[in-house]
Amino acid sequence: MYEVEVKVAADLDSVAERLDGLGAEHTGDVVQVDTYYDAPHRDFAETDEALRVRRETHDGETEARITYKGPLVEAESKTREEFETGVDDGAVADDIFANLGFTPAATVTKDRSFYRYDGYTITLDVVEDVGEFVEVETETDEDGVETAREGAYDVLRELALDPSEQLRTSYLGLLLGDAQE
Amino acid sequence: MYEVEVKVAADLDSVAERLDGLGAEHTGDVVQVDTYYDAPHRDFAETDEALRVRRETHDGETEARITYKGPLVEAESKTREEFETGVDDGAVADDIFANLGFTPAATVTKDRSFYRYDGYTITLDVVEDVGEFVEVETETDEDGVETAREGAYDVLRELALDPSEQLRTSYLGLLLGDAQE
Repeated sequence: MYEVEVKVAADLDSVAERLDGLGAEHTGDVVQVDTYYDAPHRDFAETDEALRVRRETHDGETEARITYKGPLVEAESKTREEFETGVDDGAVADDIFANLGFTPAATVTKDRSFYRYDGYTITLDVVEDVGEFVEVETETDEDGVETAREGAYDVLRELALDPSEQLRTSYLGLLLGDAQE
Repeated sequence: MYEVEVKVAADLDSVAERLDGLGAEHTGDVVQVDTYYDAPHRDFAETDEALRVRRETHDGETEARITYKGPLVEAESKTREEFETGVDDGAVADDIFANLGFTPAATVTKDRSFYRYDGYTITLDVVEDVGEFVEVETETDEDGVETAREGAYDVLRELALDPSEQLRTSYLGLLLGDAQE
């Protein structure tokens, strides 16, 4: 399964208005606190991988997930292979990685509002210490990557956003001050 | 939290009879399939650690857990620090560790019958390709380790088993043919 995702900086109030005008479904809001880990045996910045423990709070309940993101397989749309599973206890997941020699590199905190429109998930993100962004995202198999990316660009245009302003740097990268790729 | 555990080889039919005679409560049966991982950056055999993904099947339902076991903190009773959390999808946990460079080292499959007696969990294990064993186990804080170990020895004696025959090699070690420590 591949995640196709395009992201641009945006003024979220006006994007939310457009989404309402298009009849997009507002599917929920969450707060996500993501701890990214450095590996003891690889430089994830070099290998373009990420290991994350996410806490997500929704309606007062917090769930935790472990996610591994592999290197880009398609640079244009930030397509990566991704493996993610829920865990019963995020603090224990942190303990396990710490004992294996992984070290917390940074924490990204964001308020996210999710919308559903035209087969895509559209996410309005307020990222602490970074800014406001819109992500347009879907999942596809390997053969569908290009079509899915074009569709995501169409959605951005419908929101009066410019696909050519796509950011390919992760929120983690933006937080850490990485240069735009 | 420390796990105090003593283990001896035993004929399980006669141990089960003794447990019945003592009025121990038979609390359940499971099948556990444990995948142990080698690390890319450490030799767990040297560092005396373990990383495991366990699938446990009980009444037709399978659950998965990730466990990290630290080095022995008390050799006499095999006491270790242990971090364990359930995961929603064991196959994804396997994928995450594989992508991080961890490799499956061995699989241990066992049929386990659990009993509760005198504050201890007593486990009758049929370990595939290894043999039959009884484990007597409890959890304690650091100060309670010695008392808990003596109590486990008492339970073994009540089952007509000899604490001096305690095995300190894990099932993984026995399967891989490690020498008794």
